[in-house]
Amino acid sequence: MTTASILGGSGYGGGELVRLLLAHPCVKVQQVTSRSHLGEYVYQVHPNLRKRTQLKFSDPAALEPVDILFLAQPHGQAQHHIEEYARLAPKIIDLAADFRLRDAAFYENWYGEKHAAPQWLSKFVYGLPELHRAEMASADYVSGVGCNATASNLALLPLVRADLLDTSFPIFIEIKVGSSESGAEGNSGSFHAERANVIRTFSAFGHRHTAEVIQEMGLPDVSLTMTAVDLVRGVLATVHAKVKKGVTTKDLWKAYRVVANENPFLRVVKESRGIYRVPEPKILAGTNYADIGFELDESNRHVISMCAIDNLMKGASGSAVQCMNLMLGWEETLGLDFAGLHPI
Amino acid sequence: MTTASILGGSGYGGGELVRLLLAHPCVKVQQVTSRSHLGEYVYQVHPNLRKRTQLKFSDPAALEPVDILFLAQPHGQAQHHIEEYARLAPKIIDLAADFRLRDAAFYENWYGEKHAAPQWLSKFVYGLPELHRAEMASADYVSGVGCNATASNLALLPLVRADLLDTSFPIFIEIKVGSSESGAEGNSGSFHAERANVIRTFSAFGHRHTAEVIQEMGLPDVSLTMTAVDLVRGVLATVHAKVKKGVTTKDLWKAYRVVANENPFLRVVKESRGIYRVPEPKILAGTNYADIGFELDESNRHVISMCAIDNLMKGASGSAVQCMNLMLGWEETLGLDFAGLHPI
Amino acid sequence: MTTASILGGSGYGGGELVRLLLAHPCVKVQQVTSRSHLGEYVYQVHPNLRKRTQLKFSDPAALEPVDILFLAQPHGQAQHHIEEYARLAPKIIDLAADFRLRDAAFYENWYGEKHAAPQWLSKFVYGLPELHRAEMASADYVSGVGCNATASNLALLPLVRADLLDTSFPIFIEIKVGSSESGAEGNSGSFHAERANVIRTFSAFGHRHTAEVIQEMGLPDVSLTMTAVDLVRGVLATVHAKVKKGVTTKDLWKAYRVVANENPFLRVVKESRGIYRVPEPKILAGTNYADIGFELDESNRHVISMCAIDNLMKGASGSAVQCMNLMLGWEETLGLDFAGLHPI
Amino acid sequence: MTTASILGGSGYGGGELVRLLLAHPCVKVQQVTSRSHLGEYVYQVHPNLRKRTQLKFSDPAALEPVDILFLAQPHGQAQHHIEEYARLAPKIIDLAADFRLRDAAFYENWYGEKHAAPQWLSKFVYGLPELHRAEMASADYVSGVGCNATASNLALLPLVRADLLDTSFPIFIEIKVGSSESGAEGNSGSFHAERANVIRTFSAFGHRHTAEVIQEMGLPDVSLTMTAVDLVRGVLATVHAKVKKGVTTKDLWKAYRVVANENPFLRVVKESRGIYRVPEPKILAGTNYADIGFELDESNRHVISMCAIDNLMKGASGSAVQCMNLMLGWEETLGLDFAGLHPI
Repeated sequence: MTTASILGGSGYGGGELVRLLLAHPCVKVQQVTSRSHLGEYVYQVHPNLRKRTQLKFSDPAALEPVDILFLAQPHGQAQHHIEEYARLAPKIIDLAADFRLRDAAFYENWYGEKHAAPQWLSKFVYGLPELHRAEMASADYVSGVGCNATASNLALLPLVRADLLDTSFPIFIEIKVGSSESGAEGNSGSFHAERANVIRTFSAFGHRHTAEVIQEMGLPDVSLTMTAVDLVRGVLATVHAKVKKGVTTKDLWKAYRVVANENPFLRVVKESRGIYRVPEPKILAGTNYADIGFELDESNRHVISMCAIDNLMKGASGSAVQCMNLMLGWEETLGLDFAGLHPI
Repeated sequence: MTTASILGGSGYGGGELVRLLLAHPCVKVQQVTSRSHLGEYVYQVHPNLRKRTQLKFSDPAALEPVDILFLAQPHGQAQHHIEEYARLAPKIIDLAADFRLRDAAFYENWYGEKHAAPQWLSKFVYGLPELHRAEMASADYVSGVGCNATASNLALLPLVRADLLDTSFPIFIEIKVGSSESGAEGNSGSFHAERANVIRTFSAFGHRHTAEVIQEMGLPDVSLTMTAVDLVRGVLATVHAKVKKGVTTKDLWKAYRVVANENPFLRVVKESRGIYRVPEPKILAGTNYADIGFELDESNRHVISMCAIDNLMKGASGSAVQCMNLMLGWEETLGLDFAGLHPI
Repeated sequence: MTTASILGGSGYGGGELVRLLLAHPCVKVQQVTSRSHLGEYVYQVHPNLRKRTQLKFSDPAALEPVDILFLAQPHGQAQHHIEEYARLAPKIIDLAADFRLRDAAFYENWYGEKHAAPQWLSKFVYGLPELHRAEMASADYVSGVGCNATASNLALLPLVRADLLDTSFPIFIEIKVGSSESGAEGNSGSFHAERANVIRTFSAFGHRHTAEVIQEMGLPDVSLTMTAVDLVRGVLATVHAKVKKGVTTKDLWKAYRVVANENPFLRVVKESRGIYRVPEPKILAGTNYADIGFELDESNRHVISMCAIDNLMKGASGSAVQCMNLMLGWEETLGLDFAGLHPI
Repeated sequence: MTTASILGGSGYGGGELVRLLLAHPCVKVQQVTSRSHLGEYVYQVHPNLRKRTQLKFSDPAALEPVDILFLAQPHGQAQHHIEEYARLAPKIIDLAADFRLRDAAFYENWYGEKHAAPQWLSKFVYGLPELHRAEMASADYVSGVGCNATASNLALLPLVRADLLDTSFPIFIEIKVGSSESGAEGNSGSFHAERANVIRTFSAFGHRHTAEVIQEMGLPDVSLTMTAVDLVRGVLATVHAKVKKGVTTKDLWKAYRVVANENPFLRVVKESRGIYRVPEPKILAGTNYADIGFELDESNRHVISMCAIDNLMKGASGSAVQCMNLMLGWEETLGLDFAGLHPI
């Protein structure tokens, strides 16, 4: 068995990782750390793990050597300790935003501070297998992904791969998100009485995940607008753009099918009957799927491309496990076989 | 007291009208009709009216003459009986979509059928006081408004009034809606187990309310995309567009303040602190307010304009009562003074 | 106009009071205090009040004399300053729990600490008009009510008034509550991701509101069990008990109708058709109604009595305004005429 | 591989069975039938199964012989065709209520009609492994369980097994349920706008699942009260009763631990810190766990016993798969290893 430890296991992404790794057929979870819950059983914070593990949260300072180390800390910590972590484990996957961007200046521009370990940026592969599968086979260091960036990148992927967009028009991406995105540490606006029933646009422009879309998709004029809705898990990204002249619905079908065929967790959803005709996050809770779909108004070339994911799975911990599988030469889908629930 | 009757009072818009008119200081509700609930107490269908009225639903065929008649039937019925209704009441407000468009060919284009009373189209004033206040003072016939069209038109109003948009770029309007919009008659996708927790884009293009935006705003390239979220009452429309070169945030502030000052139910919401910084529908439940706000990315001229309303109030019955007030020469805000709830 | 001030206006109960008093035809709101939001506009915390008031939160230390003073502070503060408040206003209504119990020893038993002003306990009338209407006409000091106690007391009222219960059996009261009950200051379990979708029994026995039920109903063996559900506003209390031998459904109908006829805000809800057959809190949001209903199993004498209220209205600020109306000799229902919304 | 077919696979219980059996390591799904969705892909109705199966719904009349047959039809059908089904499969599990009760007169009393195949009642084992594990090893026919009965029976199990209840007092069971319980076929009260935000007591007494509690627990005076809350999946049953004189909290701890140790899917939840201190259904979505807990007021012998389950899993399809595992001599937990999600 490959040993794995999780640094920062009391947050939502860390908890999801613990769940996935405990059920993974080739992995043994060695340590899960938490400063604030030190000594407590992991199941006291993540109650779904009761009767699944007797692990207790251990001290991050007492981290032992391990085959693969997952970093699930708040943003901005890993870059200060990466050398130390690299001495503990030959393989590292960092779920935070510390190593997602390739360029130190670009990082500084979006995060408003100098990067503490710029020489490490080029050692990391951006952690979305659908974009960097081949590189992962030989990678030692893989970054996490922003959940909103992931939904946006996968909504754009078929259009960009097939070169169907008229990039002289702006690209607006409207993103609706659930409450788990803001993490286990909330603010007064996160309390149920204020957060329930919302349609609340908390970021009109300038969300940091935009940088990951620009880097990975190479698009000049793209903006992400973030709106919170009443849901715990899930993201829906909706790309609004214009296709090139002459592009037809048939071309789009082909482009979407190609990427769905190449990627085990991508599914095209575009039905003409039934309740579930378009990508929707609610049925993806707990799964690693990204459902994609589109609609074209041929009269004016408007295209809408949608991608739905579970922000804690495909948008965070699920993709991280998928990366681990590729890094270690295992079947890509190992330990990620939960189909999701209907209804939910 | 002015007498008023409501044709079609068992639906959500009709029920809201009954509530508003029962509490209106100058109106006496004479009849409320319903075929399917004939003979039942109105409060058995609208339980909020228990101990408020002993009215029973009466037969639409037994409608008596009245000072003002509200039509709250499903779309497509009023145009077949408008002559008959006009003999019963000198003033008519039709909440359905039958008389919202001014042009018969335009109607046929969007509704896919010939209009049954095209000669009546020009007799109706489009029922949004913020656009047609002056005409209402002398109008006998006023149409309803589409709730999504209303949120879109009011989000666009400051930008269009001040001529700030670069109309060479497309205008995308992203609209998120609650479940009451689909009316008291639902389908299998409306059942709670399927409809809870959704982020479901049920109309990417071509929603009929688009026609009202085109007619009232005169914009060439505009599309409405409709997404259902987990909420009962409320609509948020978000306009994505480009402003003309040189337009600044200061220009936008001025444009928004002008329309808010001219209109008692418009409020600019753009705060830099607190939980409620942007327009949000949840706190508008039961009120006639339309909260508007904006955000400008000066680097690339992207503007986001938001409008939040209660779809059953400002988007339907509230605007209808506001129109009645103007038609009858009363104070515009009469009977529409509920402030809304916080939290909710 | 009668002047009124609110000490502690940034919480949910305080905000609801501001809304009600601003709309009250005989009252002028003089000051609303808040330490944490000092100097902010009231509408920045309670966004429903935008365009309704330009009041700012003032310093509690700068409170001026006033005709009637509402105390809406956290529990435990008013008892330390009541002498001082009494010098500022001839009439006081305290929404907190400081003066709800008549007996100092009983208070100490339930609150775990000595009362700081025991001599004041007998000067206060318990603030539920349905129990103490006559005394309020001459009262200067009226307490608030616990929201769960109110739902319980009003569910019990018809049974106790008509002496129908077999008190040799225990009385279990199951109470389901929304999230606004825990106030604007929450804890980590109040964050949306943890609080959404819950059925969470947070107090099996010993909730402090039990003391108000024992005091007001005089029952020997009664317990309240509190369960949080996914709703913002609302309480449903369900009494489980045994009736005396020979008591019939007809006896119960009579007992419930009597109290509903005597009290403008009580309504009996017990329908055999339609969607809303029993008391339900959701349609009461923003109203001062208490809907009551019952079901009897004549085979074994089990009775179920239900009472639904809005915890911030009938369970707090609405009852407080109703008390004010009675204390000042006004119509009991003044300023409390909102009918509530359907659907919601 | 053992072959299995599902008669009636388009409902919620049927869909859950398909999901579980597709993922079961020892089972091959042969046919899934549906009259109303004949010829459609199973994933068009259960969208979580997209990319998991290319099965289409087949005609119930074309059912082929199979190793084990699951009946997931509406109540009242299986009893008319059981002979025919028994010719198709040596092992049958019926999820409906047709064969849950052992006594034909008792059945008639609760279901209001004569049973169509009374001679078959004694051939079926009641399908709750925690009560009938030993019998299942040799059973050919196993019934389903009522979800509310299951939550009630498992809440009662430790108390009854250890003989701790004072049965001279009545037992009230308060049950809160999500919307998936009413099945894929709803009524007008199931539409989201009416069903969201509810605390709606839809059955005060006489729910049919009561019969299963009486039969299995042998208690004289027990009543179930059913209240719908805003949640899709989940049941919480809360037993209110009196324990015998002298029973202590320690006795209860022992009784609960005994049953949890004997049963792989039972867990005792009774924490003094953290957010999840008591049994809660939300974290059980998709799992087969039944979380149980209790609280005792030693001053008056009131005991509260809680059991939380996912109504579609432990309350229906999960228990059915668990029964299958026992009937076929497999590991009891096979195919039921999903841990559930946090947060959700």
